Amino acid sequence: MTQNNLSDNELLAMTPHEFRSIVREGGYVGTTEGVCQGYAQANLAAVPKEAAFDFLLFCIRNPKPCPVLDVTELGNPHPRIIAPEADLRVDIPRYRVYENGELIAEPTDVTGYWRDDLVAFLLGCSIGFDWSLRAANIQYRDIGVYTTNVRCIPVGQFCGPVVVSARVFSSAHDAVRAVQITSRLPASHGAPIHIGDPATIGIKDFYHPDVPAEPVNPLQPNEVVLFWGCGITPQAVAIEAKLPFMITHYPVNMFVTDKLTEELAVL
Amino acid sequence: MTQNNLSDNELLAMTPHEFRSIVREGGYVGTTEGVCQGYAQANLAAVPKEAAFDFLLFCIRNPKPCPVLDVTELGNPHPRIIAPEADLRVDIPRYRVYENGELIAEPTDVTGYWRDDLVAFLLGCSIGFDWSLRAANIQYRDIGVYTTNVRCIPVGQFCGPVVVSARVFSSAHDAVRAVQITSRLPASHGAPIHIGDPATIGIKDFYHPDVPAEPVNPLQPNEVVLFWGCGITPQAVAIEAKLPFMITHYPVNMFVTDKLTEELAVL
Repeated sequence: MTQNNLSDNELLAMTPHEFRSIVREGGYVGTTEGVCQGYAQANLAAVPKEAAFDFLLFCIRNPKPCPVLDVTELGNPHPRIIAPEADLRVDIPRYRVYENGELIAEPTDVTGYWRDDLVAFLLGCSIGFDWSLRAANIQYRDIGVYTTNVRCIPVGQFCGPVVVSARVFSSAHDAVRAVQITSRLPASHGAPIHIGDPATIGIKDFYHPDVPAEPVNPLQPNEVVLFWGCGITPQAVAIEAKLPFMITHYPVNMFVTDKLTEELAVL
Repeated sequence: MTQNNLSDNELLAMTPHEFRSIVREGGYVGTTEGVCQGYAQANLAAVPKEAAFDFLLFCIRNPKPCPVLDVTELGNPHPRIIAPEADLRVDIPRYRVYENGELIAEPTDVTGYWRDDLVAFLLGCSIGFDWSLRAANIQYRDIGVYTTNVRCIPVGQFCGPVVVSARVFSSAHDAVRAVQITSRLPASHGAPIHIGDPATIGIKDFYHPDVPAEPVNPLQPNEVVLFWGCGITPQAVAIEAKLPFMITHYPVNMFVTDKLTEELAVL
């Protein structure tokens, strides 16, 4: 799956331009966690123009799971706000291509799939706020991703549940700091949408996430769980809408932007 | 121009629902400054659906002057996010109606002008953050509105300069507090876009605003000027685009939402 000759330290220290150039030349396929320290990463969803207004409005109405970082001009693969010299067809390690909601390919280059009627959405990602939490020495475990019983505000054919990512903090102090820090970062999902009991938002089995990250050890009495809107939400909703065509990133193979997470902070 | 029998204190203490009901019955025409203390107010721009995607994207790309509070369903005059029981055709004191960029009417009710192909945008307003500044006992003078030489990021036919509102603060301390407070309020234009010399953003005659508020007394050495993106920006850009049809609010006759400014704060 990967053909990487790069050390963890090399990946961490790279600039987004350097990293994307290597990806573009086929030199890296794999997770973008740990890549380009401090830089915001983005979820990709490229949809036909007929669906673009409703999808944009869906994101605007549901900004916690779907923070809009950039939207490309019709057919144009260059995100002019967050990385103008990037090419969304080749600069993401791996993609997924859907027809009518069915996965048809998982290529590392979508030049052959790109269409003049596509509008590409780049939506914020929690990898961004993880940089800021770690920079503040916050102690936490990244547990994984869950589907909740909280409904997104629907727009047209786009509707579905809010998907969340969960983090377990070692102390109430660190949990409070995490609320403060992420509130400043609306481009990385902003403040948590839930604190405490997973059952309140319809999570029946906390110890078995839909998408696990680290092993879920039993919660300790001093620990506090926070839940953030997750960028899987808009993608799941768009797949469910069975759009005739759509291109997304492959899970955790994100687009690395030219913007530092802290550059996008509101305070 | 007004048929108001309401005292300043009555207007200040009213709920948005009460105020809009009076407006709806023709009982109030005039400025919404000083109305419904603490509640966010909004600029209105209702545009034909053909222009809606580009206008929405224009707002997203220029969030300081154009913070999106709500966007209605096609033809639907009810803003479901910020005031679901309101009716945008009758709940604003006075409107402006445009055809091809030309002002054709300034009615107090646009029921007869409303069309099934309209999408209404409600965009944040600085009246919102003025509540929060006053609540923090910040001392300042509201000077007025200026067109700058800063360009909005264009989208399609929508392009033009950023319009700003200027406030003069009595001390550096109050100016710093104003940056902090408004940074928390992206729905009310967020943080200032400029501090200090008006000439830097192309304001040639600070003492003569395009739209004056209070008389502009000479700046004192201890005073600091801050400039915020202004909701006149998207309206000016939409007029300049000469859309075949558009409905807006009349200046300073805003839509009063059901959301407190502090309810929309990010922190």
